Amino acid sequence: MYVKVIINGAENNIRAVWFNDGKVMMIDQRKLPYELVVVGFNNHADVAVSIRNMTTRGAPSIGAAAAYGMCLASLNKKDINKAAETIRNARPTAHDLFYAVDHMLAALGDGKDPVEAADAYAQMIVDKCVMIGEHGSKLIKNGDTIMTHCNAGALATVDVGTALAPIRKAWADGKDIFIYASETRPRLQGMQLTSWELLQEGIPHCVIADGASGHFMRGNAKHGIKGVNMIITGADRITANGDLANKIGTYEKAVIAKELGIPFYVAAPISTFDFGTECGEDIVIEDRSEEEVTMIGDKRIAPEGSRAKNPSFDMTPARYVTGFITEAGVLKPSEISKVR
Amino acid sequence: MYVKVIINGAENNIRAVWFNDGKVMMIDQRKLPYELVVVGFNNHADVAVSIRNMTTRGAPSIGAAAAYGMCLASLNKKDINKAAETIRNARPTAHDLFYAVDHMLAALGDGKDPVEAADAYAQMIVDKCVMIGEHGSKLIKNGDTIMTHCNAGALATVDVGTALAPIRKAWADGKDIFIYASETRPRLQGMQLTSWELLQEGIPHCVIADGASGHFMRGNAKHGIKGVNMIITGADRITANGDLANKIGTYEKAVIAKELGIPFYVAAPISTFDFGTECGEDIVIEDRSEEEVTMIGDKRIAPEGSRAKNPSFDMTPARYVTGFITEAGVLKPSEISKVR
Repeated sequence: MYVKVIINGAENNIRAVWFNDGKVMMIDQRKLPYELVVVGFNNHADVAVSIRNMTTRGAPSIGAAAAYGMCLASLNKKDINKAAETIRNARPTAHDLFYAVDHMLAALGDGKDPVEAADAYAQMIVDKCVMIGEHGSKLIKNGDTIMTHCNAGALATVDVGTALAPIRKAWADGKDIFIYASETRPRLQGMQLTSWELLQEGIPHCVIADGASGHFMRGNAKHGIKGVNMIITGADRITANGDLANKIGTYEKAVIAKELGIPFYVAAPISTFDFGTECGEDIVIEDRSEEEVTMIGDKRIAPEGSRAKNPSFDMTPARYVTGFITEAGVLKPSEISKVR
Repeated sequence: MYVKVIINGAENNIRAVWFNDGKVMMIDQRKLPYELVVVGFNNHADVAVSIRNMTTRGAPSIGAAAAYGMCLASLNKKDINKAAETIRNARPTAHDLFYAVDHMLAALGDGKDPVEAADAYAQMIVDKCVMIGEHGSKLIKNGDTIMTHCNAGALATVDVGTALAPIRKAWADGKDIFIYASETRPRLQGMQLTSWELLQEGIPHCVIADGASGHFMRGNAKHGIKGVNMIITGADRITANGDLANKIGTYEKAVIAKELGIPFYVAAPISTFDFGTECGEDIVIEDRSEEEVTMIGDKRIAPEGSRAKNPSFDMTPARYVTGFITEAGVLKPSEISKVR
């Protein structure tokens, strides 16, 4: 990971999720940006809980955690199919979770070593992210202003990131870029995770309220506010017709981008494509607890008695997507059947 | 105000801003929804500070506070033109502020009683809001789901409200309605003020993250999520061509409403029209402090070192507006020159 972590006086490279000494290790992303805490689990049920309670989050990191969870179930001689069910039920929207569980069921069925199989799965994610960075960075011009949403960075994808991969590569290539990170209520992953990742590398950026996205996308030449040249988000699931589920707030940016003529790119590994689901309306959107909206930490911020609704994702129809930045290149929505 | 307040054992009707015993009284809206605190000021400079620091907010309430501030300057034998300048500088975007100051300069120039002139100005706002409620409620059908943003309620307009006036009237008329109040980051006026006002009257509603607005506007018939039938927001300034400045996040809702074919109404008294400004690009948007985004109360929620941008308003072009709900009726953007 681009994050420099000093452990016992030595600089360490850690990942969002990895396996060490019989345990699934992960950065507790709920503690960021306040402190960098690493936790470890030695059984698949705890890993399922860590996915549900968002200790780790982001579809590819969830996939890696699921793979390592299946690895633990195998090492612990548990019923593999029951473990698969437990892990699949942790979060309903992330396609990578199902993909990772199926991948491990097949690998274990083929008699592969559980740790090697899960490590290979995690490394495969990272390799794909590197390729997403290569392909996506070609779309970024020197001087561009780019908006992203939520966190589709190294934290979300074991390492490197999806939406942040092209941004990192463009910056590493010396391009002068500026990033708007929308804060991503209710859980503030844009403010607390994306900004944290960008700070580690010194990539120029600022945080904005989600509702300010349209204002900054359009800009105002009379007042010297430059508009946005490109949006890049991640995706949690992409259906056969190119519709996608991603963090709540993505749909709004896509609609406004279309209205303003701003290219809207979705960076995701091909494993995010769910060709078994026809279109976005069929995706079950996870509703999370009201308290994520009405509380900040232990403090209630809504009036006593106020109710809230808290869908974790929204659905963006394919017609708003300029291109999917995948490890196999940039695909138009009409071209995704190529990677089926 | 629809808010029932018990003072010394008796039920009192209070307003967002009023004049009593030589003081400008106001609800300290920064303390809501946690406690209902009323503060009083005996000089115009303190009133200007109370506008700047958002003790009172909402364009019409700011207008009333400004009128009462001018009243205090007159009672205190201060230089009226200097006082006007101090008050005008409190917040740069709200047209009502300038309108109220000019109104009071004229009234005081005509030798009118300062308190009577300011009281009449405040009552005029309330009377207009009642008419906005009458006209606007005719647009609301039984069973409608309505979305609003920020707080354009009684707190924002001395009493009754602008965007909330049609909603209150429709509810009082027995219509079965449901309201989505988007929370309105960074200062959460939708969550903390609009939800608080709706709770007082038992109007069914829920709070959502700003980024969830598009998701709920569109709905999803397959999953039993009903879309929104109508958006009603307030406005801080409406220019001669029908563009408007309103709380950051308004523009996004307007664009998505157009895309989805949802009527987008702006409820505002005619005093909000600024025929001296040609179009929205000419409006100076107030930038407020980064800490409104990066802090919640005393707690920093952004990583140390993160910068934020915090425009208080955005500009919505006239082409997105279905109608302006004014005290004189509902006007299309092309019709506003009628009330010039």
